[in-house]
Amino acid sequence: MDYSGKRKKMRILFIGDVMGNSGQKMVQEYLPKLKRKFHPQATIVNAENATRGRGINEKVYKAILSYGADIITMGNHVWDNPEITSFIDSAKKIVRPANLPAKQVPGVGYVIMQINQQKLAVINMQGRVFMTPSDDPFAVATGLIEKIKKETDFIFVDFHAETTSEKQAFTWFFDGQLSAVIGTHTHVQTNDARILPQGTAFLADVGMTGPYDGIIGMKRENVIDRFLNQMPTRFEVDEEGRANLSGCLLDLGDDGMAKKIQTIQINADHPFEE
Amino acid sequence: MDYSGKRKKMRILFIGDVMGNSGQKMVQEYLPKLKRKFHPQATIVNAENATRGRGINEKVYKAILSYGADIITMGNHVWDNPEITSFIDSAKKIVRPANLPAKQVPGVGYVIMQINQQKLAVINMQGRVFMTPSDDPFAVATGLIEKIKKETDFIFVDFHAETTSEKQAFTWFFDGQLSAVIGTHTHVQTNDARILPQGTAFLADVGMTGPYDGIIGMKRENVIDRFLNQMPTRFEVDEEGRANLSGCLLDLGDDGMAKKIQTIQINADHPFEE
Amino acid sequence: MDYSGKRKKMRILFIGDVMGNSGQKMVQEYLPKLKRKFHPQATIVNAENATRGRGINEKVYKAILSYGADIITMGNHVWDNPEITSFIDSAKKIVRPANLPAKQVPGVGYVIMQINQQKLAVINMQGRVFMTPSDDPFAVATGLIEKIKKETDFIFVDFHAETTSEKQAFTWFFDGQLSAVIGTHTHVQTNDARILPQGTAFLADVGMTGPYDGIIGMKRENVIDRFLNQMPTRFEVDEEGRANLSGCLLDLGDDGMAKKIQTIQINADHPFEE
Amino acid sequence: MDYSGKRKKMRILFIGDVMGNSGQKMVQEYLPKLKRKFHPQATIVNAENATRGRGINEKVYKAILSYGADIITMGNHVWDNPEITSFIDSAKKIVRPANLPAKQVPGVGYVIMQINQQKLAVINMQGRVFMTPSDDPFAVATGLIEKIKKETDFIFVDFHAETTSEKQAFTWFFDGQLSAVIGTHTHVQTNDARILPQGTAFLADVGMTGPYDGIIGMKRENVIDRFLNQMPTRFEVDEEGRANLSGCLLDLGDDGMAKKIQTIQINADHPFEE
Ligand SMILES: [Fe+2]
Ligand SMILES: [Fe+2]
Ligand SMILES: [Fe+2]
Ligand SMILES: [Fe+2]
Ligand SMILES: [Fe+2]
Ligand SMILES: [Fe+2]
Ligand SMILES: [Fe+2]
Ligand SMILES: [Fe+2]
Repeated sequence: MDYSGKRKKMRILFIGDVMGNSGQKMVQEYLPKLKRKFHPQATIVNAENATRGRGINEKVYKAILSYGADIITMGNHVWDNPEITSFIDSAKKIVRPANLPAKQVPGVGYVIMQINQQKLAVINMQGRVFMTPSDDPFAVATGLIEKIKKETDFIFVDFHAETTSEKQAFTWFFDGQLSAVIGTHTHVQTNDARILPQGTAFLADVGMTGPYDGIIGMKRENVIDRFLNQMPTRFEVDEEGRANLSGCLLDLGDDGMAKKIQTIQINADHPFEE
Repeated sequence: MDYSGKRKKMRILFIGDVMGNSGQKMVQEYLPKLKRKFHPQATIVNAENATRGRGINEKVYKAILSYGADIITMGNHVWDNPEITSFIDSAKKIVRPANLPAKQVPGVGYVIMQINQQKLAVINMQGRVFMTPSDDPFAVATGLIEKIKKETDFIFVDFHAETTSEKQAFTWFFDGQLSAVIGTHTHVQTNDARILPQGTAFLADVGMTGPYDGIIGMKRENVIDRFLNQMPTRFEVDEEGRANLSGCLLDLGDDGMAKKIQTIQINADHPFEE
Repeated sequence: MDYSGKRKKMRILFIGDVMGNSGQKMVQEYLPKLKRKFHPQATIVNAENATRGRGINEKVYKAILSYGADIITMGNHVWDNPEITSFIDSAKKIVRPANLPAKQVPGVGYVIMQINQQKLAVINMQGRVFMTPSDDPFAVATGLIEKIKKETDFIFVDFHAETTSEKQAFTWFFDGQLSAVIGTHTHVQTNDARILPQGTAFLADVGMTGPYDGIIGMKRENVIDRFLNQMPTRFEVDEEGRANLSGCLLDLGDDGMAKKIQTIQINADHPFEE
Repeated sequence: MDYSGKRKKMRILFIGDVMGNSGQKMVQEYLPKLKRKFHPQATIVNAENATRGRGINEKVYKAILSYGADIITMGNHVWDNPEITSFIDSAKKIVRPANLPAKQVPGVGYVIMQINQQKLAVINMQGRVFMTPSDDPFAVATGLIEKIKKETDFIFVDFHAETTSEKQAFTWFFDGQLSAVIGTHTHVQTNDARILPQGTAFLADVGMTGPYDGIIGMKRENVIDRFLNQMPTRFEVDEEGRANLSGCLLDLGDDGMAKKIQTIQINADHPFEE
């Protein structure tokens, strides 16, 4: 698959859960390079763990945009940094899970961005299995799709969920209605990138951007201790060591359906190639 | 990475969760081909879902061995087919999770197989996060390793668990003491195969062998309905459609530590190449 | 508290989770006696486990009504007996959780029954903590209350949930808007019956009606074995031994608010007194 | 049941989860009065939430002893106050769950206290359903009982667990081997106090000592907000309002088996009677 030269109707670059400074630095360093290499029209970055591993504050939100992100998506950690409630309603480029309790939380569950003559809707959605309760993602997405389809057929979903079954069920159910459903939350990239029969691209998890030698990005010692003794510990981002960037690249056709999907990893075992 | 020619001290082929007839057929068709291509000295197959998606009976146990498996590992579904309690204690090539309640269940948690002059220990272990209670995998593995190390340094662990954090924590904790920790259970292959600094190979999940167009191998309709209406349904393996095989290949050196790890997928999007 | 003579505006008898034949027989024997003793205007019976411990079929539905129940409420086991989908839409006196996925399931989440000149609304609601996903009970109840209040201020909620925190939070949130919130699901009666400051009666769990010497009504051996060996077992109602009836009695005033709440237990340690 | 005059071989007073200053004050005020009224030989107090609702520090540990407690039991919140690791090994009258990871945590899982010519063992045990992983309570208790029986037949267990099924299964399994299994953790007293056929007293939950108008002792607003919007909040003990004390009284016979069990509640709806 040679993505470097040709252009489909729309090319999207998605970068998974940015963890702390380690993840921010990877975005800062490699997002420009990825853009030069792949020329995406839209870049989406999940940043639910961008500020010290827990949520995002305004400074980091702006920093990630300044590195080249167009839209920032979140997940179950969206409210972990309390600062977010003070800027999310004025921020125009951040999306929190759309199926959080209706009328109870600030922010929006999707945005529509303009790309030349095209519009791209970016939805953030949260799963329910092994996660805190939220509104039904199937029902909420059905409503959103109906609404968004009046404006555009280019619809990207960051589906933030724990289990592979929920991610697969969601994507198969909406196959042909969404451009892509890309999972986040497990912090490990899956090896199942594919395009379903009706044209929806799927990847169960895009993986994490941040510490390469931590445990889901956190310092190993703390996490291991928790498993060993079940005592409470405050996990901290493993900021010192080697870092990793995880992402994927999508090519959408005229009809908004996916033509290609390719995973991206940049780390010591997979160095970036210009 | 060219695995076809050279030989390390030991090459292991591991095939992930075989689902129903669909998965069995893939093993029957491709395991001989994979052996011809890669010449592994040991082949391990996780078959916790081999008989109609739930556990394994004796007929299927023998069938999978006849296709070329040396050792069969299980997982949380080990007891789903009640027939297993009648043959597991006489079967010599099946391993159930080692950290099930001590003294309460039949079967064994590891086996040591002889390969020419070499011995390979195969341990099956179950995670605890988002799973039914079991004994502490860290404590149980510590005890087993101490015991097994007297016989061999070649130790393969099929770690059957839900979360990436538990799989990563377990592997980092035992880095340098185990040849490989390969995850199963999510039925989706991850894209994180690597060798940790002290020599333990890791893959968070090897993926599933069976239906390619189901949801974790089950018929889509049933699973989707459950997500839509939360009503109880009996899931059934999607036996009709296209199939998939997921596995990985490991090369171990003289010291039992991993030299190489490579994932394997055979399906419509990744056809087998001789 | 002497309830035998005087009458408030409305007296309600509520009987908790009927388990199998054991529970049915207790209702058959004691419901008439309880009615003679307490003269409730309305009798509500949770029967989510009435048919062999799993759901309810039409025969048992009719039997429980024939014993004197006016309304039957359910819970997370509502669909366990598949027969229910064939009669729930024509049955007029059965209520399933109101916060099941909107538009995806049959049945209704509340009924309004006529009692002389009075109307009593009976709502069934399901919790979300440690339970399968459902719609937000706080949001759904808010909508239902707004609607029902146009007809009547007498509103009884059977809140079927696992945790005490969710039950308490729900009741305090709606204190003054609901006549009573009585919990079900744990099968153990709590000792916290009280009337909150704005007039809503509360009991975290009314308890179970059925086997007195089982484990939550199931045969002990099976349940204990499951805890010991974590192997799958089919639980069966302990139909042979002694039985128990759990309930509560509510007195509501003119304004629909509670004036009194009293628990009821009938078993070998608490024999029925005429 | 008149407990005021006569004495069995041993009378035990158990007071449930002390929450913050509110709970401490109730113990300070009423424990002396309860002792004067009931003359227990041993007083056990669960204090896992005694210091600001999260764990216990040394000052509060000593305060509760000074109010008259002989032994303090804990639960899943045992490590919440980090100070505990500095004094638990020198403290002689505090018991943490016995089935925490063996060899990984400080403190002890049981103590044996001397009461005149008698010895009483006090075990703290933690459930596994809907709780963080721990060692098998059935297996650990089996080992402890075997060991303790050499010294005494008077064995009290504070079983700290979420579900009624696990509490009932544990107690029925050990019926005749333990003097009493009294549950804690849900913070709501259950109405199921009884003595099982072989003589073990059982109460699924003894309830909480602390705020009477909070939600499981926490300020209502915070907890309700969490249920409404699913946003993270720091819960705080509702220190301002009315308070409650929950406990139970046990009478054991010569053989260590229970003769009587009675619940205790002191609050605005159940004032203390001398
Ligand atoms: Fe997340
Ligand atoms: Fe994340
Ligand atoms: Fe599996
Ligand atoms: Fe599994
Ligand atoms: Fe029930
Ligand atoms: Fe239930
Ligand atoms: Fe507590
Ligand atoms: Fe607790």
